[in-house]
Amino acid sequence: MSEFKLIKVKEGILSENDKKASDLRQKLKSENKYLINLMASPGAGKTSSILKIAQNLNKDIRLAVIEADIDSSVDAEKMAENNIPTVQLSTGGFCHLDAEMVIQGLEEVVKENPDLIIIENVGNLVCPAEFDTGAHSNIMILSVPEGDDKPLKYPLIFSVCELLIVNKTDMIELTDFNLEELEKRAKKVNPKIEIIPVSAKTGKGFEKVASWIEQKIQKIRG
Amino acid sequence: MSEFKLIKVKEGILSENDKKASDLRQKLKSENKYLINLMASPGAGKTSSILKIAQNLNKDIRLAVIEADIDSSVDAEKMAENNIPTVQLSTGGFCHLDAEMVIQGLEEVVKENPDLIIIENVGNLVCPAEFDTGAHSNIMILSVPEGDDKPLKYPLIFSVCELLIVNKTDMIELTDFNLEELEKRAKKVNPKIEIIPVSAKTGKGFEKVASWIEQKIQKIRG
Repeated sequence: MSEFKLIKVKEGILSENDKKASDLRQKLKSENKYLINLMASPGAGKTSSILKIAQNLNKDIRLAVIEADIDSSVDAEKMAENNIPTVQLSTGGFCHLDAEMVIQGLEEVVKENPDLIIIENVGNLVCPAEFDTGAHSNIMILSVPEGDDKPLKYPLIFSVCELLIVNKTDMIELTDFNLEELEKRAKKVNPKIEIIPVSAKTGKGFEKVASWIEQKIQKIRG
Repeated sequence: MSEFKLIKVKEGILSENDKKASDLRQKLKSENKYLINLMASPGAGKTSSILKIAQNLNKDIRLAVIEADIDSSVDAEKMAENNIPTVQLSTGGFCHLDAEMVIQGLEEVVKENPDLIIIENVGNLVCPAEFDTGAHSNIMILSVPEGDDKPLKYPLIFSVCELLIVNKTDMIELTDFNLEELEKRAKKVNPKIEIIPVSAKTGKGFEKVASWIEQKIQKIRG
């Protein structure tokens, strides 16, 4: 028997994910819900940044959070302590979230009727960037101690994000991090990327991040 | 036609990798070559730590480096500037190294007849931990700004490493990082893990890391 069927597994799964992600984006738009996918390295400050965003957002905006973690719930606990409706997705070893996992998480948090949902993706600069989660905006955090050369080394994640939050700027004096060099390198990969330096420790810069998000929410509501 | 063949693709590939990795480990041992797989988050200080290890190693030990990077060669350039024989593996979007990729890298660096080869894996705490590279020892670096909660969140990588290097201890005063808490959490996941705090900026602690490695090399030579 010389006949055989060639199945491009990865491509199949990816295009199926793209369809699900696109449908989810449309559905949430029709419900006036804005979905943000937040990505970063481990320890770049995703959780503490979400808490600072929550403090700076207009009080009329109801926020909910989807926490992705391989094997713990420490971040979801921090959200709960701050009275932010949260669901914990345990990825069970998975290195990223896809649209189907986000849909499962949303089933829980939509009960709170949020205007804004932030997904805290798995801490990883590689795999999460490859999967459309259905979010309206991708945002990434790069922290100063990680270095200003990261757009050279992980170009995909910089290319899929609309906003780059540069965190831990309070540590900049202790490092050789050059913000101008970072901006040049990030914009070479993605000329449209916007950059906001912040410190989740002092809170500096988060009024700008909150305002950026509020404008996006306004825009989707047309 | 109701017959079909079930192929467990991932399992197949993983066990094939395990076989290759095991064979590679044996072969290198018989040649008195020690292979270390170094893993960490992006920006934790893998490259600068390798440079400090090189400075602290006994001068009789010939070191070579295999650099893995998705899309750049900045780290390999730094090694070359320091006269360390290096090969750059471009993973082309891959989030980890496997034994076959390491074998390809070794073909180049063994020309220098090294006693010690260090693989700088892709910056990622998730995927690299899942693949045996054929190394005799796995070492990971966690940097202080990443936080002391990482063993809770990325347990696999802590469980497969013999040595945990805690880098950027010069920044500890600026953070709420608790070294004792980290040790407790890491040893809960892996009771045998050894921990050495260092600063790649000041060089502090790298004499201990170099000595740890030298003992491993002695041991394999029996």
